[in-house]
Amino acid sequence: MKDLQGKNFLGITDLRGEEIRGLLQLATQLKSSSLSPKSNQVLGLLFYKASTRTRVSFSVAMYQLGGQVIDLNPNSTQVGRGEPISDTARVLDRYLDILAVRTFRQQDLEAFADYAQIPVINALSDLEHPCQVLGDLLTIQECFGSLSGVTLTYLGDGNNVAHSLLLSCALMGMNFRLAAPDVYQPDNSIVQKAKQLAREGTEITLTNEPKAAVRGAQVLYTDVWASMGEEASANSRIPVFQPYQVNEQLLSEAEPEAIVLHCLPAHRGEEITDAAIEGQQSQVWNQAENRMHAQKALLAKLLGIA
Amino acid sequence: MKDLQGKNFLGITDLRGEEIRGLLQLATQLKSSSLSPKSNQVLGLLFYKASTRTRVSFSVAMYQLGGQVIDLNPNSTQVGRGEPISDTARVLDRYLDILAVRTFRQQDLEAFADYAQIPVINALSDLEHPCQVLGDLLTIQECFGSLSGVTLTYLGDGNNVAHSLLLSCALMGMNFRLAAPDVYQPDNSIVQKAKQLAREGTEITLTNEPKAAVRGAQVLYTDVWASMGEEASANSRIPVFQPYQVNEQLLSEAEPEAIVLHCLPAHRGEEITDAAIEGQQSQVWNQAENRMHAQKALLAKLLGIA
Amino acid sequence: MKDLQGKNFLGITDLRGEEIRGLLQLATQLKSSSLSPKSNQVLGLLFYKASTRTRVSFSVAMYQLGGQVIDLNPNSTQVGRGEPISDTARVLDRYLDILAVRTFRQQDLEAFADYAQIPVINALSDLEHPCQVLGDLLTIQECFGSLSGVTLTYLGDGNNVAHSLLLSCALMGMNFRLAAPDVYQPDNSIVQKAKQLAREGTEITLTNEPKAAVRGAQVLYTDVWASMGEEASANSRIPVFQPYQVNEQLLSEAEPEAIVLHCLPAHRGEEITDAAIEGQQSQVWNQAENRMHAQKALLAKLLGIA
Repeated sequence: MKDLQGKNFLGITDLRGEEIRGLLQLATQLKSSSLSPKSNQVLGLLFYKASTRTRVSFSVAMYQLGGQVIDLNPNSTQVGRGEPISDTARVLDRYLDILAVRTFRQQDLEAFADYAQIPVINALSDLEHPCQVLGDLLTIQECFGSLSGVTLTYLGDGNNVAHSLLLSCALMGMNFRLAAPDVYQPDNSIVQKAKQLAREGTEITLTNEPKAAVRGAQVLYTDVWASMGEEASANSRIPVFQPYQVNEQLLSEAEPEAIVLHCLPAHRGEEITDAAIEGQQSQVWNQAENRMHAQKALLAKLLGIA
Repeated sequence: MKDLQGKNFLGITDLRGEEIRGLLQLATQLKSSSLSPKSNQVLGLLFYKASTRTRVSFSVAMYQLGGQVIDLNPNSTQVGRGEPISDTARVLDRYLDILAVRTFRQQDLEAFADYAQIPVINALSDLEHPCQVLGDLLTIQECFGSLSGVTLTYLGDGNNVAHSLLLSCALMGMNFRLAAPDVYQPDNSIVQKAKQLAREGTEITLTNEPKAAVRGAQVLYTDVWASMGEEASANSRIPVFQPYQVNEQLLSEAEPEAIVLHCLPAHRGEEITDAAIEGQQSQVWNQAENRMHAQKALLAKLLGIA
Repeated sequence: MKDLQGKNFLGITDLRGEEIRGLLQLATQLKSSSLSPKSNQVLGLLFYKASTRTRVSFSVAMYQLGGQVIDLNPNSTQVGRGEPISDTARVLDRYLDILAVRTFRQQDLEAFADYAQIPVINALSDLEHPCQVLGDLLTIQECFGSLSGVTLTYLGDGNNVAHSLLLSCALMGMNFRLAAPDVYQPDNSIVQKAKQLAREGTEITLTNEPKAAVRGAQVLYTDVWASMGEEASANSRIPVFQPYQVNEQLLSEAEPEAIVLHCLPAHRGEEITDAAIEGQQSQVWNQAENRMHAQKALLAKLLGIA
């Protein structure tokens, strides 16, 4: 299955369900070291926003594949001097083998993909965070044996992570529920796309009632209430989002074997309590580790070395 | 030809014509992968100014040679805390195998070279940009089969790139013309040096008449009108430089097979039009790629591995 | 002696005297290339303060061991966004093989060590600078054949470097003297710890009289009078510290074969004169180089590859 070689990964729906399954299988093999593909290629990281997990997990993944990484801090490149993306992309294309971009705007990502022939990876945009979701799916699969039929409830801001989760649930035959204040529901275009992708019989529920959304769920997922760039409104958001906090009380409404996921960084006392993130049902540290394994599989596939 | 091992490359005239020819031949071999010298040495990049192309192309070149790269951001090193260059240079000399410096002042470069025994490379200074010009020469040679006798016209600011081009044309037996406003002509010391280096019969013309300078030229070359550090005067420069814009009309005055070069980043509508940079005669993306191949050859020679 | 594998190195007393001797022996072997252990592991550098020597020497050391390095600039990571260390540490633990932290607070280092299972190295804190001292000991051993019985006099601010020197002299059977203004004497807790560690018959002298402290000494050591974060008080410190300047006059009071050490960056005319740092008794450039060899030995031991 080298059919992903050379492709872009701008959103989770750039992959079909069976391709995601193949990636997760490869990630599992790489994690157990039963497979060790090698490349000496170069990954560029162009991050317009802060990043710990994504930057480190991509770097380590590429190093473990035998490759190299260039961290293209926009502050110290011409990208920060107003050069059009079309020019930057065409030049980077001549030097790099693959490029991961973290940007405020999905259209910037698409511009990079339009002008660079090398694979371009969405390392988080305003619209999606598909690499996060690959690691999430790996974690869920590890906990429940398979993805199909698992019910995931996302609580909080209907943001980029929520979008990629919604779309990936539709792709993988998972039931997706989202509980959020009315004005923080996910983009309608994403919801419509997910409904088109979803198989008959899988659930997509958008609600403002957290307790109902959690009942019967096997995965509770949350993220910060104010993403990067929205810090100014963080305080005013707190009372609005309070009912959607993942805490022990809400967790007790879910299935007994339910797991708690959070893409980090976490704001304890806001979207999640210390007890919930540190509790026995929390899988957040395994989830963080799985970013690396899933991205290693993605890199290997896009580079055509696995 | 290992005679460049351990030398500095502070300006294009640190090389003789035959050494440049040897470097371009090596770059061509490296580009076609017919040769693959390997080192496990470490290149330091110390850039006091923003850089995309130079930083990435040097990094990828070193990685492809099997080496490693340390990006010494002055903001996060003691260099930024006022340590004298003589101390920084002597310490880096003990850790690194080779050092590329981008600086506002040629004399800083020379101080690094004086105090470090490892090779020091000029990765752009106020006076010269010799690594840029190595890639340019490779591009011109690819387009015209040889360098000798080719006529290159530089239009615009008589800056560091113009200096290195002027000197390299003198070294390689190329005809050099520069059209610039009177106050933006190149430094007289560089012009005198070029005249001393030039063979009998090769042309060095400095003029303020763009059309005459372009007639019969095979290479039209331009750069931004305000370089890094001169942005404050950028707007006032526009009307002065307008007649020197590389556009389709001016290009039609050159030889039919003429190529357009630009060291990037480009300001479309200022020193070059969109039509000229995106047109069939533009070689700017190949030119950008050739930075990497030429610098790889340079690194291999200075490190003594080719 | 693989018994250091997986351990932390938060302060010099995390090692016993014989372990330090083993490290110095390994460093000597690595320096002469008689041994070449290889790893393909990843070192993370998390530096909250500027660094040239430590950053470059750790990077080169890891590269020469075959490993990789990720420079985790806090400005571009979530660490800078107020994520608790306990979370950052647990995530980095899943990606990295070893972590070096430069921080303003020793307790932050301890928090990293508490939450990360991988080895955590003190790359300078307010309390200690043990990696510096490993390189210093290697330099002293190279100059005098052994450490035991050598008399080291530290002049100036009783800071983190002074602390690690004091403790390491106690561990290695060296005589330690410190001459500093009364209010800049080392922390009493460190002094007490050193006294407990020191063998019978080794000297620990704290004084405010530089000349007496230097008499009979074989090593004169100084550091800047205002460390990173104390620059505001730098000017007011100058007259207070003036008597403790390492200059030719003071040096003439020491043993004729005495060496001068400085951990750099140096402020000539303040804690050391140009004549002293550039003179024949100065070992500062060898000392700087030895950072790399000592840290390479440390990395090899903590990673269990030597």
